[in-house]
Amino acid sequence: MPVYLLVIAYDGTPFAGWQRQSNAVTVQAVVEQALARQIGEPVRVVGASRTDAGVHARAQGAHVEVARQLSPSGLVHGTNVHLPPEVRVMAARRMKDGFHALRCAREKEYRYYLSREPVLSPLAARYVVRAPRRLDLVAMRAATARLPGRHDFSAFARVGGAHRQPWRTLHRAEWVEHGEHLVLHLVGDGFLRGMVRALVGTLLEVGRGRRAPEQLGALLEGGERGRAGPTAPAHGLVLERVDFSPEWEYEIGACP
Amino acid sequence: MPVYLLVIAYDGTPFAGWQRQSNAVTVQAVVEQALARQIGEPVRVVGASRTDAGVHARAQGAHVEVARQLSPSGLVHGTNVHLPPEVRVMAARRMKDGFHALRCAREKEYRYYLSREPVLSPLAARYVVRAPRRLDLVAMRAATARLPGRHDFSAFARVGGAHRQPWRTLHRAEWVEHGEHLVLHLVGDGFLRGMVRALVGTLLEVGRGRRAPEQLGALLEGGERGRAGPTAPAHGLVLERVDFSPEWEYEIGACP
Repeated sequence: MPVYLLVIAYDGTPFAGWQRQSNAVTVQAVVEQALARQIGEPVRVVGASRTDAGVHARAQGAHVEVARQLSPSGLVHGTNVHLPPEVRVMAARRMKDGFHALRCAREKEYRYYLSREPVLSPLAARYVVRAPRRLDLVAMRAATARLPGRHDFSAFARVGGAHRQPWRTLHRAEWVEHGEHLVLHLVGDGFLRGMVRALVGTLLEVGRGRRAPEQLGALLEGGERGRAGPTAPAHGLVLERVDFSPEWEYEIGACP
Repeated sequence: MPVYLLVIAYDGTPFAGWQRQSNAVTVQAVVEQALARQIGEPVRVVGASRTDAGVHARAQGAHVEVARQLSPSGLVHGTNVHLPPEVRVMAARRMKDGFHALRCAREKEYRYYLSREPVLSPLAARYVVRAPRRLDLVAMRAATARLPGRHDFSAFARVGGAHRQPWRTLHRAEWVEHGEHLVLHLVGDGFLRGMVRALVGTLLEVGRGRRAPEQLGALLEGGERGRAGPTAPAHGLVLERVDFSPEWEYEIGACP
């Protein structure tokens, strides 16, 4: 059966996260319902990242297998007609047989958005969290510089998160300033459940002088969730992109 | 009585505009209610711009007279406690007696936000309107270049708008590109009701080749509203700032 990659953006505010649940509205569920109406058959959509309630995505990756070949452009625009305004299929691409968004994801980027405005503008407040009043950015950057590399992130994983092993590799971790905004860019091969928000909560403790930057070293060697800082609010977090190996791209005429 | 300037930001989505109405929730009404709770007396707030339903503001200017002297910082944070998340008092300043936000406004800036993304991201859709597929930006810019100066904007004024005279002076009119975004910056001494959205609707007709850029010249000499283009959607419009003469700033020890 033909398999398609869907690039999906959403404002996570009204959703109980990505993953289907029996008694809550989730992004996966509304995308499956919209696709089913467009295609005329029930479908299962598998996402690369199971984002939590209130977390946004600029480009979640997901795949769907359908019984017949479809035009990617029709899949985009036809599905969007049936979606609420908070969710949009931004693009669709045919992939080779066997493609699986969760298993084939190679790299992901998350960003966490803080603002140092004295009063947070209501035009930003859906996607940005107000930073604590005084932040020692030098200390935060010293702590953040310890993140790239392969580490045991158990201390930053939500208790009960169903990961098989707690090792992940971060390729980039950096705070970028845009005017009053302060944005943490995290790029890695994968992220444990709750990991980005626990990292942000811990780095903010460093920024407020409650924790030394050097403590990050020990926290990256595993241990209990309670050793790291609190979980930062969901609405400052955006899944920016999911990358897949180009070998999965379907080529017309190829026989994968 | 001491008079204060309030700088107010709002997401216009849930409001029937700035101006108080008997049967609708407006920004002016929720600000008056929040101030009354903070100060403990009924107050009247006067805004510099009567923005329409769905229009946003990054920095509306408004004044309020109160019976006793207040700390600007207390006015900001105390009032915000009583406001819905879509409205925030960003700053407050004591002004000289006689200051009036509507009559003393010297210059205003509006911006209109378009996006040329094939699918509009839900993270932008509250504040951005999708541009028509093919736009002749050169023609739009030629038409826009005719706007600065003093003109009779009757052809762009909402029918029934209560202006005493239709002459306004634009100091700047320019389309600025940021990636996929295309933003019209308009700076002027004042704007008629519906004027920015009618200008945008007319400039988009030029961009789509339905109207020659030269036609703007005749439209700026007055005439019926029907001669200009349609009204562009409200949610792409943001009141960015209102400037007042510095002579109105209250100086401690001064006796205005």
